[in-house]
Amino acid sequence: MLRTHTCGELRIDHVGRQVTLCGWVQRQRDKGGVVWVDLRDRYGITQLIFEEGVTEASLIEKAKSIGREYVIKATGEVVERYAKNDNMPTGDIEISVSALAFLNGSQIPPFTIEDETDGGETLRMKYRYLDIRRKPIREKLELRHLMMQKVREYLNSEQFIEVETPYLIKSTPEGARDFVVPSRMNKNEFYALPQSPQTFKQLLMVGGIDRYFQIVKCFRDEDLRADRQPEFTQIDCEMSFVEQEDILQTFERMTKFLYKEIKGIDLEVFQRISYDEAMRKYGSDKPDLRFGMAFVELNEEVQGRGFMVFDSAELVVGINAEGCAGYTRKQLDVLTDFVKKPQIRAKGLVYVKCNADGTFKSSVDKFFGQDALKGWAEKFGAKPGDLLLILAGETNQTRKALSELRLEIGSRLGLRDEHKIAAVWVLDFPLLEWDEETERYHAMHHPFTSPKPEDIEKLKSAPGAVRANAYDMVINGVEAGGGSIRIHDRELQAEMFDILGFSREEAEAQFGFLMNAFEYGAPPHGGIAFGFDRLCAIMAGEQNIRDFIAFPKNNSGRDVMINSPAKISEEQLNELGIKRVELNGL
Amino acid sequence: MLRTHTCGELRIDHVGRQVTLCGWVQRQRDKGGVVWVDLRDRYGITQLIFEEGVTEASLIEKAKSIGREYVIKATGEVVERYAKNDNMPTGDIEISVSALAFLNGSQIPPFTIEDETDGGETLRMKYRYLDIRRKPIREKLELRHLMMQKVREYLNSEQFIEVETPYLIKSTPEGARDFVVPSRMNKNEFYALPQSPQTFKQLLMVGGIDRYFQIVKCFRDEDLRADRQPEFTQIDCEMSFVEQEDILQTFERMTKFLYKEIKGIDLEVFQRISYDEAMRKYGSDKPDLRFGMAFVELNEEVQGRGFMVFDSAELVVGINAEGCAGYTRKQLDVLTDFVKKPQIRAKGLVYVKCNADGTFKSSVDKFFGQDALKGWAEKFGAKPGDLLLILAGETNQTRKALSELRLEIGSRLGLRDEHKIAAVWVLDFPLLEWDEETERYHAMHHPFTSPKPEDIEKLKSAPGAVRANAYDMVINGVEAGGGSIRIHDRELQAEMFDILGFSREEAEAQFGFLMNAFEYGAPPHGGIAFGFDRLCAIMAGEQNIRDFIAFPKNNSGRDVMINSPAKISEEQLNELGIKRVELNGL
Repeated sequence: MLRTHTCGELRIDHVGRQVTLCGWVQRQRDKGGVVWVDLRDRYGITQLIFEEGVTEASLIEKAKSIGREYVIKATGEVVERYAKNDNMPTGDIEISVSALAFLNGSQIPPFTIEDETDGGETLRMKYRYLDIRRKPIREKLELRHLMMQKVREYLNSEQFIEVETPYLIKSTPEGARDFVVPSRMNKNEFYALPQSPQTFKQLLMVGGIDRYFQIVKCFRDEDLRADRQPEFTQIDCEMSFVEQEDILQTFERMTKFLYKEIKGIDLEVFQRISYDEAMRKYGSDKPDLRFGMAFVELNEEVQGRGFMVFDSAELVVGINAEGCAGYTRKQLDVLTDFVKKPQIRAKGLVYVKCNADGTFKSSVDKFFGQDALKGWAEKFGAKPGDLLLILAGETNQTRKALSELRLEIGSRLGLRDEHKIAAVWVLDFPLLEWDEETERYHAMHHPFTSPKPEDIEKLKSAPGAVRANAYDMVINGVEAGGGSIRIHDRELQAEMFDILGFSREEAEAQFGFLMNAFEYGAPPHGGIAFGFDRLCAIMAGEQNIRDFIAFPKNNSGRDVMINSPAKISEEQLNELGIKRVELNGL
Repeated sequence: MLRTHTCGELRIDHVGRQVTLCGWVQRQRDKGGVVWVDLRDRYGITQLIFEEGVTEASLIEKAKSIGREYVIKATGEVVERYAKNDNMPTGDIEISVSALAFLNGSQIPPFTIEDETDGGETLRMKYRYLDIRRKPIREKLELRHLMMQKVREYLNSEQFIEVETPYLIKSTPEGARDFVVPSRMNKNEFYALPQSPQTFKQLLMVGGIDRYFQIVKCFRDEDLRADRQPEFTQIDCEMSFVEQEDILQTFERMTKFLYKEIKGIDLEVFQRISYDEAMRKYGSDKPDLRFGMAFVELNEEVQGRGFMVFDSAELVVGINAEGCAGYTRKQLDVLTDFVKKPQIRAKGLVYVKCNADGTFKSSVDKFFGQDALKGWAEKFGAKPGDLLLILAGETNQTRKALSELRLEIGSRLGLRDEHKIAAVWVLDFPLLEWDEETERYHAMHHPFTSPKPEDIEKLKSAPGAVRANAYDMVINGVEAGGGSIRIHDRELQAEMFDILGFSREEAEAQFGFLMNAFEYGAPPHGGIAFGFDRLCAIMAGEQNIRDFIAFPKNNSGRDVMINSPAKISEEQLNELGIKRVELNGL
């Protein structure tokens, strides 16, 4: 090793030792007679000192010439500092340097390598290798590494076997868009990159592996959002001879283990809520249950009183913003504008102020008297000083809008404390959802999810009413993971493909291998998958998953650091037997 | 859980317990009054018993109807066996069944699910999910899982951080052929799948990660051999502020740790040999050092004696097959045919028998008398009873041929014992190798490998003579891993690309991001990568890596189970902006 110690380990009891450190120059302070250099590596920062009378003159000159981010190797004696720095672990000592070598120089970095940088995201991504030198980014990658270790520690202890499934598989139109890979050896044919190892992990169950997991990259050619990447990492798990409850227990334990080991937090027993209840009370299948503010439906109370907006609405529903009766006209206008935003699309916002004196002030006074408003307030369990916020319209759209308003108010009232953890299992999802566009049913989870046995007879008569053995784990309003008990019967699987609009031929061509496998002794099985990038962000109490990925891509799927994707040579295209379709302007 | 226990855990002290087991029917024996069923899961096999007078008649009938590989759930009492079976851990007990449920039926499997199967490889691969139920395959996947755990345990303890690098990167013609992925969002552009995370791990070193590892899939679009797969797994590692010796020490320790933890074997200190010596003494850069039989060169002794074959040869070289003087004419003909095989291409084989009476019998008697042959024998250190085998011709080709013969003789003499482990570091590889075809130098390892400092001045004058800071770990004649100290200086890297025939523009376009990174404080660094599939096979003492991969591809890159690659829809092609080149007959 070029060094005897790292920049993070020297303490007062090393004083007198001759050491050699290597690292990057965080900063250099030239006070004329004395030059200090803060030397940084992954493990910490140690101060180097060069001073007249102690350090050889030529060395002091050399120290004066050091620039930021130079890579240097310094040898010297560990000495006690005159002015100690309690803010850094190595703050009691410094190195009185007797030998100094420049291992590499550095240009001025395009942004400051500090906890708080002046670099914008694009610049940081272009020079990601410099961004990673910053403590906040490095710590996120270290957290990710620790998460991986702990996930594996837990699953290994539960007899799960990590099995690597292939990356070059077959394209299956169902679900999101695939990335495809042209095959040179099999001209005119393509591999696809997996959106998840779903079918392979089911085949491993058929193969008797009993308990499988994998921390694995998955790929989706979707148009991207802030928290979406074309390649992302999944903790993928499957178990045999289990029922839904076994999976909920196993992975609730895993999540508790992670919070305990990594954050020292003991989570309470996870809440459970059905999909229907979640939609009715919170307008979302990912409810943030760090706070209440459940929806209250008012159709009975408000309809047939001549107020068209309510009378014509499929649903009239509201929330109680406790203690907000004092909101000004202006503040209420801001909320009204909020719900009218194009992403939310509510037509308007009705409010009722529960005044301290027991009277009520509402934006619909002319239609509803004090008694009526009093009745609403009682239904909300509202106290004097509270503010009722009410939306009306088409059910799903109105619930969605009120869900956004609930989260907004929750944030304004500081009810979404990142130090508070509210984990909930959302259960009993519908098996199918109707797609207006294609006018057919889509699998809400995926085509391999089993219907609840008691609902199977409804598959033909009322497909939309069939509930699935599917479940999501939601933490603080974010979906951490989801899964289902799978179909393991060939006939039922064939019927599912049928309902999803596959012809027998299509089903056979795409999933014949799985349905055949079901004919050779497929065990009952089910599983779950966690979005690992997101789980890391949740664990750190952050929103953006990008900084938890070493080399993320931007919203147009580009890696701006290596400038990928890029053109390839005609020779490569010819070998693959494909050619570009010439597009206008390209 | 559908079961209370697995099929591997019940013992004599469970007798009297009511248990429920789930699994697959290994076999069913119907002895009329008694029916036995061997129930199998991942954890073992437990015997079920149904007998008249004890078991309800209807259950016995049901048991008689069970077929192989049916998935069943059986509840009953653990009872002591009349006839114990010491060959199985559960052999002291059986389950007297009181309830039996068929969880799934099974067709007759296409091959027997036994340790020794009657299924050929193609059939096994088509039904891999059944093949995996076989103990030998399952144990290989379990070994692989254990290897992963131990590799991570070691590297974590050595402060390595596992960082995931991207799979959608950029195509770089240097090296093997890339698999490419057309980009939909960036029309006419392509991603490439990584042949290795080489440049990214180097950027992580520039980023100050200090010690990186990853167990990661890599991709090469090569024509396949038995031990090559288009996607394979690598243990990829990189360290900063190190010299070659540090990396050799760190990963020799890792390999010893794996052998100790997994096989209980204490490996000796690894041998070390230079590339030149390996080629001279064993004709291979992957010498199998479980046995000696080093080459002996005879040019001085044999040339200029009028024997054209020797006189015209660039190299005359042989090995001593100890104790083989008794080989018959027929046996010697077999060896001669062996070296004449097209893969080996020697013109002929000269032998010298060292007879017990101290005389010599040779196939070149007419050119060389007893004294001459005695001289040769002395140079070989041959004893009476030994057999000298000699080849002559162009140096590299002759060494290669003799290397094959050495391995063949080693096998015939039982010197390649799979229980013996000979690990060696091959050092001082040439930096460059001349390619006749393209008439330019290629990087022997890769373009990022650093030349030995003392050889740098030869880069221009004699590029072929420059040695690299590169190393391979070879175990029993198989390359387990290899790596190098990298270039971390922009100018030197640019010079390398220059020597490799890159124009400045090409180098900039393909590797500009790396050379730019070198200008912002790149530390000295180096690393190594192990072929994980192969390492697993080596650890198990086997040749074929396929059975250590859950879902391998065949020699034409096909997954015959899911039948991939496959055609994709015109719609997909249009979205991607590519089209197939129509080929004759397709």
